[in-house]
Amino acid sequence: MSFDLILFGGTGDLAWRKIMPALFQAFRHGSLPADGRIIGVARDDLSDEQYRTLIKSRFDNVELAKRPSEEEFSRFARMLGYLRMDLSDPADYASLADKLQQRPADVVVMYVATAPGLFTTVCEQIAAAGLNGPQTRVVLEKPLGHDLASNRAINQTVRSVLTEQQIFRIDHYLGKPSVQNLFALRFGNSLFEPLWRREYIANIQITISEELGVEKRGAFYDSTGALRDMVQNHALQLLCAVGMEPPINSHADAIRDEKLKVLRSLKPWTPETLSQHVIRGQYAAGSMDGEAVPAYRNEPGVNPDSHTETFVALRTEIANWRWAGVPFYIRTGKRLAGRDAHIEVNFRPTPHAIFNSGQDCNAGNRLVIDLQPRDGLELHLLAQGANQRHRRGTPTLEPVQLDLDFDKRFGTERVGAYERLLLDVIDGRLNLFVRSDEQEEAWRWVEPILDRWSHDPTGPRPYAAGTWGPSASSAMIAKDGYCWSEES
Amino acid sequence: MSFDLILFGGTGDLAWRKIMPALFQAFRHGSLPADGRIIGVARDDLSDEQYRTLIKSRFDNVELAKRPSEEEFSRFARMLGYLRMDLSDPADYASLADKLQQRPADVVVMYVATAPGLFTTVCEQIAAAGLNGPQTRVVLEKPLGHDLASNRAINQTVRSVLTEQQIFRIDHYLGKPSVQNLFALRFGNSLFEPLWRREYIANIQITISEELGVEKRGAFYDSTGALRDMVQNHALQLLCAVGMEPPINSHADAIRDEKLKVLRSLKPWTPETLSQHVIRGQYAAGSMDGEAVPAYRNEPGVNPDSHTETFVALRTEIANWRWAGVPFYIRTGKRLAGRDAHIEVNFRPTPHAIFNSGQDCNAGNRLVIDLQPRDGLELHLLAQGANQRHRRGTPTLEPVQLDLDFDKRFGTERVGAYERLLLDVIDGRLNLFVRSDEQEEAWRWVEPILDRWSHDPTGPRPYAAGTWGPSASSAMIAKDGYCWSEES
Repeated sequence: MSFDLILFGGTGDLAWRKIMPALFQAFRHGSLPADGRIIGVARDDLSDEQYRTLIKSRFDNVELAKRPSEEEFSRFARMLGYLRMDLSDPADYASLADKLQQRPADVVVMYVATAPGLFTTVCEQIAAAGLNGPQTRVVLEKPLGHDLASNRAINQTVRSVLTEQQIFRIDHYLGKPSVQNLFALRFGNSLFEPLWRREYIANIQITISEELGVEKRGAFYDSTGALRDMVQNHALQLLCAVGMEPPINSHADAIRDEKLKVLRSLKPWTPETLSQHVIRGQYAAGSMDGEAVPAYRNEPGVNPDSHTETFVALRTEIANWRWAGVPFYIRTGKRLAGRDAHIEVNFRPTPHAIFNSGQDCNAGNRLVIDLQPRDGLELHLLAQGANQRHRRGTPTLEPVQLDLDFDKRFGTERVGAYERLLLDVIDGRLNLFVRSDEQEEAWRWVEPILDRWSHDPTGPRPYAAGTWGPSASSAMIAKDGYCWSEES
Repeated sequence: MSFDLILFGGTGDLAWRKIMPALFQAFRHGSLPADGRIIGVARDDLSDEQYRTLIKSRFDNVELAKRPSEEEFSRFARMLGYLRMDLSDPADYASLADKLQQRPADVVVMYVATAPGLFTTVCEQIAAAGLNGPQTRVVLEKPLGHDLASNRAINQTVRSVLTEQQIFRIDHYLGKPSVQNLFALRFGNSLFEPLWRREYIANIQITISEELGVEKRGAFYDSTGALRDMVQNHALQLLCAVGMEPPINSHADAIRDEKLKVLRSLKPWTPETLSQHVIRGQYAAGSMDGEAVPAYRNEPGVNPDSHTETFVALRTEIANWRWAGVPFYIRTGKRLAGRDAHIEVNFRPTPHAIFNSGQDCNAGNRLVIDLQPRDGLELHLLAQGANQRHRRGTPTLEPVQLDLDFDKRFGTERVGAYERLLLDVIDGRLNLFVRSDEQEEAWRWVEPILDRWSHDPTGPRPYAAGTWGPSASSAMIAKDGYCWSEES
């Protein structure tokens, strides 16, 4: 099989940090078809050779399991080329078409990793140049819009020139091994599915916490915020993966149909739930690892009066037979006390207690799917401990943990999220990509929150950098009788 | 609290190997009441001091987490005394009564670790000497009889002079931490109980395998066999623990009532099931760890034409709403390929497969409770592996294991089985001791097997030492479409 991968935004941050390293890993793993070309596209005036040298120098600053040798890189570099393009100039797309027609490939991947404002332009120009044939697959990075209307507009334009089967909308959380293993855990094992419902599960918590602040992305972030940056996409995709019904098979649309049903089942917001079940925060000055860090409003590029949220905690429910009444909590933020992404499934307590056990709100059974920093599974149970030498009266149980570390089990040379997704694009597997109707449904659900915030002059609640966010977040969950996992 | 522990059979094998080391460990752990006496009783003519010296020398040959220092042993030795008795002579019980009346204790434990033929004599003589008052607790070792009639006779005699509350029938498997944790796992956690039933469980396997042969116990073993030695007591107690309904509380009779119900629910034998679902074997010459070992019939003390079984595999069912149709397999033997005691709960496969997974008969989900050689829990699941770099078609799952090692979690200085049981006797907790009706019900259930064997001239099937027993054992389980865990 032959393929061409055209990387629009070929000298951008994402290309250096994620896409090129992932392509190199795929090459190293022998997963790329032998007959392939990777063509970086940008406005800079570079030769193929200069582009290769640039990539090589950037590899020194990214995470790679092992640095490439000269020989290894030069074999990889043979696939690499460069094309200077002005993305608004039809003539340049004609040149691209020429280049591609010199050696027609079975699969042509157009990876659009440009500034979001150019997404529709690129798609339209590709089509105008006749490059939208059935061999073409277009990869779109986020953000696809900043609200429902703009997302719809982008999707409509893109779908006017490409079929849904040609569009690969990236949510790189879906490429994480833990997320794929969540599907395997739920639908490849008989043990969890019978318990995966309101009768046995008390609540589900999705946490994506970062220690970093906005770094150099202050201006971008200030016009985006945590709800658009993390909740509308990553957190809701995790919620779908943990909450969906078993799909009829493992094909892309079977899975995406079920995820869409979850999004459609999310309880609609009311003025009351909007005020009580959504907490927004913004980090104030604080300290991380003993070092003082500035407030969000003092970060470069950020409006000193900004109301942009750097933290969101919310509570929702999936209104269907499986989940009715079970709270799903989502929490994400920057400058929090730890870097941690996980899904925690908290089971109900035993209906009848014949043992004593701790009174801690997280003392019961729980399954934790770790996405970050490690990739693993933890099953928290209660057991009879060792030190009850004199055991008069009712025995007391102590927490124990069954553990699985995927890196230890499968080795660290695993397929990373971007590598997985890139290979899926080349193979034409849409399972781990987001369909337009999913994306729109997610925007529809977050929009009432955005609306309310835009009319609320009080702004986000401040929290000290290095904490777990505003105390209102803990208060929200405490009202249900639960607590966030870190607080146990 | 003051206590006296009178150890009948005070110079016997069990005293040296198990009881004295356990008492020492309890002393070391600070679990013995300060005001206590431990009095060894036997026919030998020994002074207190000679008895102490004997115990100390024996400690060199037993498993202790740490050797005692001179000082530590001498503190322990202050509790130790010795009394020479002829157990058939009433005058000697009068001397014992005198000794005890010099310093009346709150609790008097009579630990009967003598030859089984003396159990009833000791109990009757204790009573005749007026030593069966409410402060008295009698510990009876196994075997209590060799069939239903003899067991009943012993229990009737013992119960004519003692109340059931005073009788502590030891089955040291119940003292193992894993068995207590099986109760905790099932009834202190919400996660397993909903799955613990015919709808979700395909079969349950109980394995107690030994690498040792009959050692120096040939004569005893030849008149006993594996069914009486291991199945009637240990294996059936494990079956009760894994199969019982949730008890109403953690009191002794609540638990024992539920175990009794399991024994009463065991499917009665028919001529057909006796011939097809019970396999007896006897080890022939073979090799263990590369070293040749003799056949059972050539062991010292064994009849050269012996029909005694050194291996039993059987299949039964618990005929109630929870378990109807679920096979329970029991397998135990000497000179097998490994030393291993565990309970394996095999869950049914997923009702609908959207992933590929191995065709292995043990490839599904299973929970293993390890009793020996280590104390732990294993949860076997399927996950999506690492190396599916090109993943066309349906993803394939690979086995993974969540693991808990109780020694690692709680430390190795844990309370051992005999120590646990001795402390429970002193505390008056009957939870982990076997009630007479349980014992009789277990005998009632094994008796048809004994009957059939005694009328079957073909005798047990030979198996080479160092294997997993006769092939008929694997064939029996294969008929149901399953396999023993080691064979996967």
